[in-house]
Amino acid sequence: MASGSAIISFFLLSLALVANAADPDPVLDFCVANNSSSGSSGSCRNPSAVTGQDFVSEILRNINNTQAPNTFNAILASVSTFPGLNTMGLSIARADFGVGGVVPTHVHPRASELIYVAEGTISAGFVDTNNVLFARTLQRGDMIIIPRGLLHYQYNVGSEPATTFAVFNSQEPGLQLLGPSLFGSEIPTPVLASSLSLNESTIAALRGIYAPSS
Amino acid sequence: MASGSAIISFFLLSLALVANAADPDPVLDFCVANNSSSGSSGSCRNPSAVTGQDFVSEILRNINNTQAPNTFNAILASVSTFPGLNTMGLSIARADFGVGGVVPTHVHPRASELIYVAEGTISAGFVDTNNVLFARTLQRGDMIIIPRGLLHYQYNVGSEPATTFAVFNSQEPGLQLLGPSLFGSEIPTPVLASSLSLNESTIAALRGIYAPSS
Amino acid sequence: MASGSAIISFFLLSLALVANAADPDPVLDFCVANNSSSGSSGSCRNPSAVTGQDFVSEILRNINNTQAPNTFNAILASVSTFPGLNTMGLSIARADFGVGGVVPTHVHPRASELIYVAEGTISAGFVDTNNVLFARTLQRGDMIIIPRGLLHYQYNVGSEPATTFAVFNSQEPGLQLLGPSLFGSEIPTPVLASSLSLNESTIAALRGIYAPSS
Amino acid sequence: MASGSAIISFFLLSLALVANAADPDPVLDFCVANNSSSGSSGSCRNPSAVTGQDFVSEILRNINNTQAPNTFNAILASVSTFPGLNTMGLSIARADFGVGGVVPTHVHPRASELIYVAEGTISAGFVDTNNVLFARTLQRGDMIIIPRGLLHYQYNVGSEPATTFAVFNSQEPGLQLLGPSLFGSEIPTPVLASSLSLNESTIAALRGIYAPSS
Amino acid sequence: MASGSAIISFFLLSLALVANAADPDPVLDFCVANNSSSGSSGSCRNPSAVTGQDFVSEILRNINNTQAPNTFNAILASVSTFPGLNTMGLSIARADFGVGGVVPTHVHPRASELIYVAEGTISAGFVDTNNVLFARTLQRGDMIIIPRGLLHYQYNVGSEPATTFAVFNSQEPGLQLLGPSLFGSEIPTPVLASSLSLNESTIAALRGIYAPSS
Amino acid sequence: MASGSAIISFFLLSLALVANAADPDPVLDFCVANNSSSGSSGSCRNPSAVTGQDFVSEILRNINNTQAPNTFNAILASVSTFPGLNTMGLSIARADFGVGGVVPTHVHPRASELIYVAEGTISAGFVDTNNVLFARTLQRGDMIIIPRGLLHYQYNVGSEPATTFAVFNSQEPGLQLLGPSLFGSEIPTPVLASSLSLNESTIAALRGIYAPSS
Repeated sequence: MASGSAIISFFLLSLALVANAADPDPVLDFCVANNSSSGSSGSCRNPSAVTGQDFVSEILRNINNTQAPNTFNAILASVSTFPGLNTMGLSIARADFGVGGVVPTHVHPRASELIYVAEGTISAGFVDTNNVLFARTLQRGDMIIIPRGLLHYQYNVGSEPATTFAVFNSQEPGLQLLGPSLFGSEIPTPVLASSLSLNESTIAALRGIYAPSS
Repeated sequence: MASGSAIISFFLLSLALVANAADPDPVLDFCVANNSSSGSSGSCRNPSAVTGQDFVSEILRNINNTQAPNTFNAILASVSTFPGLNTMGLSIARADFGVGGVVPTHVHPRASELIYVAEGTISAGFVDTNNVLFARTLQRGDMIIIPRGLLHYQYNVGSEPATTFAVFNSQEPGLQLLGPSLFGSEIPTPVLASSLSLNESTIAALRGIYAPSS
Repeated sequence: MASGSAIISFFLLSLALVANAADPDPVLDFCVANNSSSGSSGSCRNPSAVTGQDFVSEILRNINNTQAPNTFNAILASVSTFPGLNTMGLSIARADFGVGGVVPTHVHPRASELIYVAEGTISAGFVDTNNVLFARTLQRGDMIIIPRGLLHYQYNVGSEPATTFAVFNSQEPGLQLLGPSLFGSEIPTPVLASSLSLNESTIAALRGIYAPSS
Repeated sequence: MASGSAIISFFLLSLALVANAADPDPVLDFCVANNSSSGSSGSCRNPSAVTGQDFVSEILRNINNTQAPNTFNAILASVSTFPGLNTMGLSIARADFGVGGVVPTHVHPRASELIYVAEGTISAGFVDTNNVLFARTLQRGDMIIIPRGLLHYQYNVGSEPATTFAVFNSQEPGLQLLGPSLFGSEIPTPVLASSLSLNESTIAALRGIYAPSS
Repeated sequence: MASGSAIISFFLLSLALVANAADPDPVLDFCVANNSSSGSSGSCRNPSAVTGQDFVSEILRNINNTQAPNTFNAILASVSTFPGLNTMGLSIARADFGVGGVVPTHVHPRASELIYVAEGTISAGFVDTNNVLFARTLQRGDMIIIPRGLLHYQYNVGSEPATTFAVFNSQEPGLQLLGPSLFGSEIPTPVLASSLSLNESTIAALRGIYAPSS
Repeated sequence: MASGSAIISFFLLSLALVANAADPDPVLDFCVANNSSSGSSGSCRNPSAVTGQDFVSEILRNINNTQAPNTFNAILASVSTFPGLNTMGLSIARADFGVGGVVPTHVHPRASELIYVAEGTISAGFVDTNNVLFARTLQRGDMIIIPRGLLHYQYNVGSEPATTFAVFNSQEPGLQLLGPSLFGSEIPTPVLASSLSLNESTIAALRGIYAPSS
């Protein structure tokens, strides 16, 4: 399934986490993350070894907005892939959509998100804690703000491919896609059944779709 | 369905929100929320009108741990029901479980959560952003910590009713139950289908379960 | 003296501090404190070595609410005893009281506190910076909120033993009991005399009570 | 002078400030700024009057990247022009450059900034507190991070017009352009002369350029 | 008693509190507190009505370092007396000491404190949560840092009057003097007796000293 | 030029930075910075090796307010020179002025500043983001508050030497002097010319003044 494979490429980017613990006000001009080797440091690179190159990133550069229909591809520039973001309280993601492509419903546990539509026509929205949907269809150049921690999605409702940029007020906002976290994790079946009012055979079928091939 | 009605009583408690905007370090000894009438103030009650009663609450007092099997009941003491919590950065919930009762998978967008098992045997866990489940079965007196914004649940796996207390490091942690937020909101059907790998007829059936009766 | 020995057991729990420096918003799903050996790290345990067990604790499990009259016993689950609390902004303490037992006046320098009465009848209160006492007698199931940094106490005024749970919005709230910090420390006698309007012989007598036996 | 007039249009956007006082963690799902009339409230709009439209903005929509050589035009979407950003900790600006256009050296007092190059070739950099310049030439799709409060600039060094987007981790980052703040304000002449090692006649000439026409 | 009257003058300054609720990062250049009339607003004064005078204060100006022996006088410039400090995260106090004068043991619930000795010789220290005293004798020009929320004092151990300045990282740090908060409040006598190992007759005598004359 | 050399001595003090990354709420009583050797740690010194001496500093002690006319000298006590300030959220600077001495226009990227005039008559002010100057002439004992990140200066307008103390709500506020950061850095000449409306020959002359002698 096309959208499934798109999701997987997104996940690989968040595997290498910088293991520092706090995202607040900086106390230095900069603190480039020192996660070259073990990835578990969180300390700052020696300032005398820092160059301008540490503050730039090309990982969103490649513009190939040619997704197949009903697929998307997303890439995140957070501190784990762009160490200069450490202590800066910002990160950014790019999503390219084929016609009908959907960034599935998900949550960022540690950040608000501002989405900007660079190309195409996107329907985007979030559900608040009273289960009210706030959504709009956005044209090229439009923006929508998603409050921290709330369920949201993007959906290419136009007749052309689309591209959006999403920015976050955390160096590592986190991403929890509901499909994989519900059906690709080991949440007990009775919990899932009760949580979603699905019967156990439906859940078993869904687990099959999301299970890692092993 | 029993668990459905339990959920609804939970929702009513969070309707009356205190409309102040920020949850950081206090700058006064206290600032009892002044939300008597319109509920839209966020200002502090005049300190000369504050008494000890403003800092106490009885809303978790009633101990009736007699839920029917497969149900639960939960109640939250946050700033909207306990105005003395304003600027204090804390809130608390109590959940009572019948045998097999489940607090469905949900997310708190603005707080970490520490769960304490007061009675019974509870399986509880959270799914991290790599879709790994961290879960354990807890006896009376045990605790589990749930990181901010991550999907989690509680499940009475014992043979007796159970009671837990959950505390949060926010005066209004927010609650987003996945069932109602997915199927009781107006998220477009293609988005849900793509997000959860469900077909549209299953989604329509689920919407029927969660739709408010009108 | 019974309450003195109770205090000492409380202190031992806070000796092994995790030496990281900041308690703000998390930037990772979790950061289990890596204080196994030297206790001076503050870094995160390697995520691949983390299991569900790191997020649970049994240290409040033992329920022996059988304190002798006029005594209490307290135990704190903070990051130094429960490493999974690191970056979570929460901790919890349990206090068991004999009849007439008192948690002496104290201050938590880094957290607000919400006290829940699990058993018995507790009088609890805090003194604000205008020296006004806000206090109430609480029944089983009641709560009181204590603002950050203010002087407060708990007192079993009932005819039965009592148990309370106190939660804090910091992973290490700190505890400064006024008796030991005033009379068990080396504050100069003239400072104490002036601070408390006590004469120097009274102070000398009090120092004898609180001095560590050496 | 072309770049002068570009600057002025930028200023007008920041005149209508929302007068709330704090930018920290949210305590509500959202708090749309209630600055319709007097502009001095900072309170939240009544949630029942909030619609999806409050969370979207079209003010960056118009794409007219046709600046004359050596000019630029910039527009900021912050809480004063996009009330849904209130308590969200994010804002965004767009700059369009003619060939040779420069966003002059400036400081944002309350935010880090991440710049993304949407079109063209931009040289951008910041000066740290040791007066070291960290700069790079960026292609379409590249990014640079600017630490909070440090002097920085953007410069279209390519042979075509250019467009960049800058995002900030504050709902109102503030903008202090060095030219106008130094020479268009009433800083005493001896202070300017000493600060910049300029003689007083040069300063007088510069004041003439920056003075508001009255 | 001389030091008693000194304490009282200190208290009067903190009666008029500005009732806003949060002390975090600013989102505006400034937000002069609008507490002219009722003192319960916390909103920002209209920026067009703000002048340079709002950012200055003369309340520490008067230099009369002529306290009688064993007395002190202290004055605090916080947001309640200097509205321009609102959202600035800073306040300052001045203390003038006669020979032997003591600023009694106290706690600031919401701020760290940096003490600078402007005149004389001061012994100052704090007690940590393990009851260890960290103290030094400071000469003119020396400084000591006091961690947030910990018990501390200042003591003029020199042969001349002394003056210190103390700065805080909060606009309203709060002050809790142990003598008045213990004996001038209505903490129940058994709680005090247990907390301080004092007998009840000593406590009754102390209450007489601290009780407000009525 | 005298004021130039004064500036240089100021810079040397900020070279040895403590490389920890965050300035938020503390989670320990104290965390003395462990930057003895490599200066790149940010970890806490072992508490058992900490003494009272770690919390005091004499670096502002020397009072030699005898600057030559039109010069000043400044010294900063921040965490890099006073390790006990780590996690305390406070720092302090002293400036001594000859008649006519000017602390040049500058910005602190990470802190608000409260200036206290200890001796003499100082004109001080800041420019807000609308280019409005808020300034006053201050007598001995007066104070002015400078919002975070805004351009400001101090100027001895009296007929005698002067001394001020400035306190900051960060352990490392940062200092960006406009002259050296503009003309002593490698900002491209066209950017400077456009930013300040100076022609390129004036800029070349200014670069000569500020260039490090090599």
